[in-house]
Amino acid sequence: MKKKPRILILGAGYGGMMTASRLSKQLGYNDAEIILVNKHNYHYQTTWLHEPAAGTLHHDRTRMRIDSVIDTNKVKFIKDVVVEIKTADKKVILEGGELDYDYLVIGLGSEPETFGIPGVEEHAFSIRSVNSVRQIREHIEYMFASYNNSEIKHEDYLTFIVAGAGFTGIEFVGELTERIPELCKEYDIDRKKVRILSVEAAPTALPGFDPELVDYAMSLLESRGVEFKISTPIKEVTKDGVILASGEEIKSKTIVWTTGVRGSSILDKSGFETMRGRIKVEPDLRAPGYEDVFVIGDCALIINEEINRPYPPTAQIAIQQSSTLSKNIKALITGSGNLETFVPDIKGTVASLGGKEAIGIVGSKKLYGSSASTMKKIIDNRYLYLLGGLPLVVKKGKLNLFS
Amino acid sequence: MKKKPRILILGAGYGGMMTASRLSKQLGYNDAEIILVNKHNYHYQTTWLHEPAAGTLHHDRTRMRIDSVIDTNKVKFIKDVVVEIKTADKKVILEGGELDYDYLVIGLGSEPETFGIPGVEEHAFSIRSVNSVRQIREHIEYMFASYNNSEIKHEDYLTFIVAGAGFTGIEFVGELTERIPELCKEYDIDRKKVRILSVEAAPTALPGFDPELVDYAMSLLESRGVEFKISTPIKEVTKDGVILASGEEIKSKTIVWTTGVRGSSILDKSGFETMRGRIKVEPDLRAPGYEDVFVIGDCALIINEEINRPYPPTAQIAIQQSSTLSKNIKALITGSGNLETFVPDIKGTVASLGGKEAIGIVGSKKLYGSSASTMKKIIDNRYLYLLGGLPLVVKKGKLNLFS
Repeated sequence: MKKKPRILILGAGYGGMMTASRLSKQLGYNDAEIILVNKHNYHYQTTWLHEPAAGTLHHDRTRMRIDSVIDTNKVKFIKDVVVEIKTADKKVILEGGELDYDYLVIGLGSEPETFGIPGVEEHAFSIRSVNSVRQIREHIEYMFASYNNSEIKHEDYLTFIVAGAGFTGIEFVGELTERIPELCKEYDIDRKKVRILSVEAAPTALPGFDPELVDYAMSLLESRGVEFKISTPIKEVTKDGVILASGEEIKSKTIVWTTGVRGSSILDKSGFETMRGRIKVEPDLRAPGYEDVFVIGDCALIINEEINRPYPPTAQIAIQQSSTLSKNIKALITGSGNLETFVPDIKGTVASLGGKEAIGIVGSKKLYGSSASTMKKIIDNRYLYLLGGLPLVVKKGKLNLFS
Repeated sequence: MKKKPRILILGAGYGGMMTASRLSKQLGYNDAEIILVNKHNYHYQTTWLHEPAAGTLHHDRTRMRIDSVIDTNKVKFIKDVVVEIKTADKKVILEGGELDYDYLVIGLGSEPETFGIPGVEEHAFSIRSVNSVRQIREHIEYMFASYNNSEIKHEDYLTFIVAGAGFTGIEFVGELTERIPELCKEYDIDRKKVRILSVEAAPTALPGFDPELVDYAMSLLESRGVEFKISTPIKEVTKDGVILASGEEIKSKTIVWTTGVRGSSILDKSGFETMRGRIKVEPDLRAPGYEDVFVIGDCALIINEEINRPYPPTAQIAIQQSSTLSKNIKALITGSGNLETFVPDIKGTVASLGGKEAIGIVGSKKLYGSSASTMKKIIDNRYLYLLGGLPLVVKKGKLNLFS
C-alpha cells in the first residue's frame, strides 16, 4: 500500500488554520496525512489583538483551542516550536523533534519591524500575540496603579506612546481612548493627567487610506484626547521614553511599537530568499524553485500589479490564499489538473476606532461611525463562520453588532 | 456669644472615623466644632487590605467616601495632608494651610517598620493603603502576564516573598494561595512554577498566637504550596530579591514587607516623645504633658500590664479607644466630671487564611476553619455597623457569611 503523502502546516494563524480546515474537508482520510504544528495549543485572532492589549476585551475572547476548531480525526495537531526548515531533506526541525513532509505550508506569521531603530526590542511592547498583549494590558494597569502610590508624581507613568499610526496603531489608540477613562476611575486619576501620543514618521496617519476617512479618524481621536505627532520619526527608544529625530525626548514608560511587520525570521534562517522577511511567492503560492513548499499569510509577499507595490499582509488575503492553496495541494496529490493562480479580491478595509466608531471602505463605499463599526464586527464574525461555522460565531463572535 | 471649641481630628482610620462618628452623636451642634482632616476623601478598612493586595477582593469594597458615612452637618471634612503639629501654638500645619484647635485627636496611623534593613523602602511593597495594595495586585498580575512573553523564563517573576509571618503576612499569604491558581489559569502558567515564600525572623509564624492554631495555619498553608522559612532573618532587600542573614539569596521581583508598623513619622517631627513612633499615652488617652491632645490607634502606645509589653495596635483597640476618647473630650468641653480610663477589652483575634479558612481565639475558645472564617466576617461587619449602621453593612459588608 502506498504511503499517504504528508502535508505539514507550520503555524496556526489565519492562513494555517484555514488551510487545515479546508484540506480536512476537501481530502478524504486516505488521501493524505495532515499535520498542523503551532507553538501554542490555541489559535488567536491577530486582527483583534488591539482590544485585549488595551484591556477592552478579554484575551480569551480572541483565542480558541485548536482542537476545538480543527477536525482532529483528520488533522493531527502537534504543539511545538519550529526551529528551521530543511528543504533539501524535506523536513522541519522542531524544538522537540523533527518532521518529514511531502508538502509544506509555511504560515509562520510575522515579527515586528523595527527598521533597526535602537532600543525597540529592549524597551517597546508589540501587539503580536496573546502573550504580548496580556503584558501590555497589565503594564498599563500597573502604571496607573503605581502613579498614586508614589510621593513623586511620575508623569511618564501616565504617558502612552504608540509608535506608528498605521492600522494597528490607530486601532490600538482608539481602544485606549475607551479604556483610559475607566482606568482613571479605577485608580483615582484625573483624565487630564493622562497623555496618549500617536507618533508617525510618514506625513499622514493611516498612509494609503482615503484622506477623508483619515481626517475623520484623526478628528475623532483628537476629540478623545489623542495627540498626533505626524511626520515625526523616532530615532531611539530608551528605558525612559523615545527620542525623536529632532532630538526632542518624550518621557514614557509605555511605548507600543506598531510600525508594521516583517515575515518570520525562520525563513531567512532556513535559506529562503526574502524581502523584509517575506517570500515573493509564485502565482500558485509556492515558494520560487520549490514544487512542494507553499507560503501563506504574513510570510508570503504578493505584488499589487496596479501600483507595483506589495499588498499589505492582511487576514483577508491569508483567508483567500487558503482557498487557492488547499485546492492546489489537492490538485498535486490527486494529480487533477493545473494549479490555480491566486488573485486577491480586496472586498474592503475597516479600521475600528474604539467604542461604536470605525472608518472603512467596502467596495467603493466609504463608511463612518457606527455603520463602519457594525461592518467591522460582521467581517470578524464572517471569519469565525468560515473557520468553525455558526457554533464558533456564537461562542467567540462579536454579537453586539449595533452597540 | 462664646466661641465654640474646635475639635480637630487628624486621620480617618478606624480611630479617627469612630471618634468623629461618636462625637457627632454625643455633642450638640452648639457644643463644639468638629473638623476631620484626611489625605484622601475616603476611609478604608486597613484590616481588609490583604485581600485587595492579593486581588481576591476589589479595593472599592474596602473603602467608602468619608462624606457618605460621617454626618457632614456636624463634622466638617477637610481633604488635606498633615505636615506638622505645633502644640505650642495649638495648630496643625497642612500642605494646603493650617488649622487651630482647642482639642486635638491624633489618629495618623502607621508606617511600615523596616528595622533599618537596607533596600526595604526602595524595593519592597507594603500593605498599608488603597494605593499601595492596588499596586501590589497589579504588580503581581504584571509578573504573570510578563512571564510567558519572554523567551527567557524568569523564575523570579513567579517567586513571591512575603517578609514577616505575623498577622498581615499570614493573612496575605492565605489570600495569595487563593488567588494564584486563578492567575495561573488566566496567564497559562503551571501552578508548580509559582513559589510563595513566607519568611520570618522569629522562631515561629504568628509569634504570640496559640501554638496549636499556628500549627493548623502553617499546615494548611503548606498544603496550598506555601514554603515557610522560619527563624530566617532577612539581611537586605535588593532589586533582584532578598539576601538572608545566612548569605543565601532568593531571587524575586515581588517582596511584600509585613514585619509590623511604627507610628506616623509626623509625631517625631512634631516633637512628641515616642517609642517606635508611638506616643505612650496616659490612661485617659492624652499625650503626656498635654491637656488637649489625645492620641488614638496606631499612634498610641498602651502597655499590657499582665505581660509588661505593648498591646499590638489593632482596629479592635482603636475602636474601643474612640469610645473612651469621645467621652473624655465631651467631659472636658462640658466640664462634666472626671476623665475615663481606657481599658482594652480584647474579645478575640481571628486571622483569615484565604477562602473559607481562618484561625482564631474568641474569649478562651479556639476556632478553626469555616467557623473562624465566619467569625472574622462577623467582626468585620460589626465595625461597619458601629460606624455606619445597617446601611453600611449592607453596602460594604461581608454578607457571604458561610461561604
